[in-house]
Amino acid sequence: MRIVQKFGGTSVGSLERIGKTADLVAAELAQGNQVAVVVSAMSGETNRLTSMAHEICAQPAARELDALVATGEQVSAALLAIELQNRGIAAYSYSGGQAGFVTDSKHERARIKDIEGDHLLTRLQAGEVPVVTGFQGVDEQGNVTTLGRGGSDTSAVALAIAVEADVCDIYTDVDGIYTTDPRIVPKARKIERIAYEEMLEFASLGAKVLQTRSVELAMRYNMPLHLRSSFEPVAGTMVVQEDDSMERATISGVAYNRDEAKITIMGIPDQPGIAANVFGPVAGAGINVDVIVQNVSEQGYTDITFTVPTGDYQQTMDIMRRLCKQMDARDVKGDDSVAKVSVVGVGMRSHSGVAKDMFDILAREGVNIQMITTSEIKITVVIDEKYIELAVRTLHSAFGLDAEDS
Amino acid sequence: MRIVQKFGGTSVGSLERIGKTADLVAAELAQGNQVAVVVSAMSGETNRLTSMAHEICAQPAARELDALVATGEQVSAALLAIELQNRGIAAYSYSGGQAGFVTDSKHERARIKDIEGDHLLTRLQAGEVPVVTGFQGVDEQGNVTTLGRGGSDTSAVALAIAVEADVCDIYTDVDGIYTTDPRIVPKARKIERIAYEEMLEFASLGAKVLQTRSVELAMRYNMPLHLRSSFEPVAGTMVVQEDDSMERATISGVAYNRDEAKITIMGIPDQPGIAANVFGPVAGAGINVDVIVQNVSEQGYTDITFTVPTGDYQQTMDIMRRLCKQMDARDVKGDDSVAKVSVVGVGMRSHSGVAKDMFDILAREGVNIQMITTSEIKITVVIDEKYIELAVRTLHSAFGLDAEDS
Repeated sequence: MRIVQKFGGTSVGSLERIGKTADLVAAELAQGNQVAVVVSAMSGETNRLTSMAHEICAQPAARELDALVATGEQVSAALLAIELQNRGIAAYSYSGGQAGFVTDSKHERARIKDIEGDHLLTRLQAGEVPVVTGFQGVDEQGNVTTLGRGGSDTSAVALAIAVEADVCDIYTDVDGIYTTDPRIVPKARKIERIAYEEMLEFASLGAKVLQTRSVELAMRYNMPLHLRSSFEPVAGTMVVQEDDSMERATISGVAYNRDEAKITIMGIPDQPGIAANVFGPVAGAGINVDVIVQNVSEQGYTDITFTVPTGDYQQTMDIMRRLCKQMDARDVKGDDSVAKVSVVGVGMRSHSGVAKDMFDILAREGVNIQMITTSEIKITVVIDEKYIELAVRTLHSAFGLDAEDS
Repeated sequence: MRIVQKFGGTSVGSLERIGKTADLVAAELAQGNQVAVVVSAMSGETNRLTSMAHEICAQPAARELDALVATGEQVSAALLAIELQNRGIAAYSYSGGQAGFVTDSKHERARIKDIEGDHLLTRLQAGEVPVVTGFQGVDEQGNVTTLGRGGSDTSAVALAIAVEADVCDIYTDVDGIYTTDPRIVPKARKIERIAYEEMLEFASLGAKVLQTRSVELAMRYNMPLHLRSSFEPVAGTMVVQEDDSMERATISGVAYNRDEAKITIMGIPDQPGIAANVFGPVAGAGINVDVIVQNVSEQGYTDITFTVPTGDYQQTMDIMRRLCKQMDARDVKGDDSVAKVSVVGVGMRSHSGVAKDMFDILAREGVNIQMITTSEIKITVVIDEKYIELAVRTLHSAFGLDAEDS
């Protein structure tokens, strides 16, 4: 097998951890696999570098910030290569540019345009271990660029595609994706195989394990991802294309988020452009709006309800109260003690009535549903925050996700 | 004027010092000059990085060490560029590779083969300030290389040549080259202009201000160097081609070194190859031999005397005692309380009798000369260490180097 292994900042955060990481590389080589490695900067290093820049000025130029922080991964890549060589492994570090990562010129959030992977593929086939810096590349003029938050995952997936790897192993501090949060539901199970689309839904629901861009990229090229633990040598969760061999439960998992506040602006004159009028000022204040629901209008008036992170509740309410007057709306109401729960599953496509089942299950427990949104493979409801554990536990059990014994 | 300014590790050692360094760049721009900057790593950074590598293994691979330590200058270049931009100056950082420094592949001691300076020249002419990492380049395969100790001076000179600068300013913590050590001779004067060859002799005599390679390079391309202080805005010492306009004192300065020990191996059978037999084991032990004198042989036997650093005296004596037996020599003698004093000057070429004058001056003060070596522009004698201040002071005065008032 040809494998790309990706290690995050904690996996290279100290010389001791670099040693443990080298163990994981050596283990794959011992199995006869070809291995390329992608590393993040040592944990804390990116922040140390950007702090220095921000001490000099509030808004350092993006080109220079990129050149500055890109050194973080160059250090960890060289140290891991040295550690591997010390064990007799032919390992060599490569910066993003050296590894052939060509990006556009949007500093701090560049997108990979192309990877000239031929050189690294030749090295891999010769039995060498390329240790490549994640998160970075060069643009066509040779300027150093970075891919933005979570970019190392994307680098790893892109490299795996370029060298035609069989799998891209993403090492993290968790050992996979679970059917739900084990802190709430002790019977939560690790998911063995999950479809890219489900993973995307989980990621957008706040599962911080994998960056959305990297999953999208893997999906486009059908590159299997293996989410696994740096600490325990057990199989994690495979993220793969949906296929018939996949266990076809109706839903794959239950996600939730307590950090939601709900705001309703009522009795707005229903005209084209009102949504833009409402959300323009919110976006302008840098506030992320999550769920949005607008019902059919009644006699020329409509209500819009949406959720924002709890920390942005007061500011958003202030904005809405001003808007209410300007737009001649009737009233603004808010509630900062709501939560969101979602069921996700590609199986939903072929099973009708999942939504009805979900609503029935919640109704039986006396949980009132305040908002509903759906996508093709996800149903989300907003409920009173105090019911969140009850809702998650009940849904997990009713949809057959509980582990057999626990 | 087009100027390349070189700043060492202490000049970029903290954000505060980076601010002062930016002042020096801004001052040249304010004069209407074009400025390119070459920087070292923040002081201590190179050691911090190499220590990590050496903690992993005793002999890390040179390629990886180069990739690792090259990040040091990349950090300081980006920070200085940010500081300059914060003042409204169009400054951009460049790594060695980005700046077009192509070297051979001898990691940790690479030599510059070529600089593709066209791009930076265009930027300079457009009024931008390129901030280039010293000490590094890439080889023809794109591997990061470093130039070895003092390499940043060499980078600066090479860049100055490539962009056809008028002068290369080397900023240090001293304000120039002095006729001798002001701690011994308060009347020592700063030398305004010095020939490349004299500077090379001073450098080889332990003046740590400029690396020999950078002076050789400047001499070959006739690039004027300006050694000057980062702290005081005064003219320093210009290192230039010898010409008629140069003040033609017989000698330019008096240099000395206390850190010398003298060893004589006596009565060696005089055969071809004996010098190699004597110095092979010394070099093998990593000991630097400085002055070597061999007199004409007498009746098939000869004496060889040489000096080594005081700290290597005991080990060298041990080696010589073993050799003495093996080579059937008569005896080994040593003295670890000697010192070396040299007079240097291109003027010597056209003034006969400098050596005789020097010996006379020392003889008048009762200083016994133990060894003598000469080059075209330098005369060196080894004397008893206790006479060193007397010798330096007397020579400095007798050769007319004392400042008029002090």
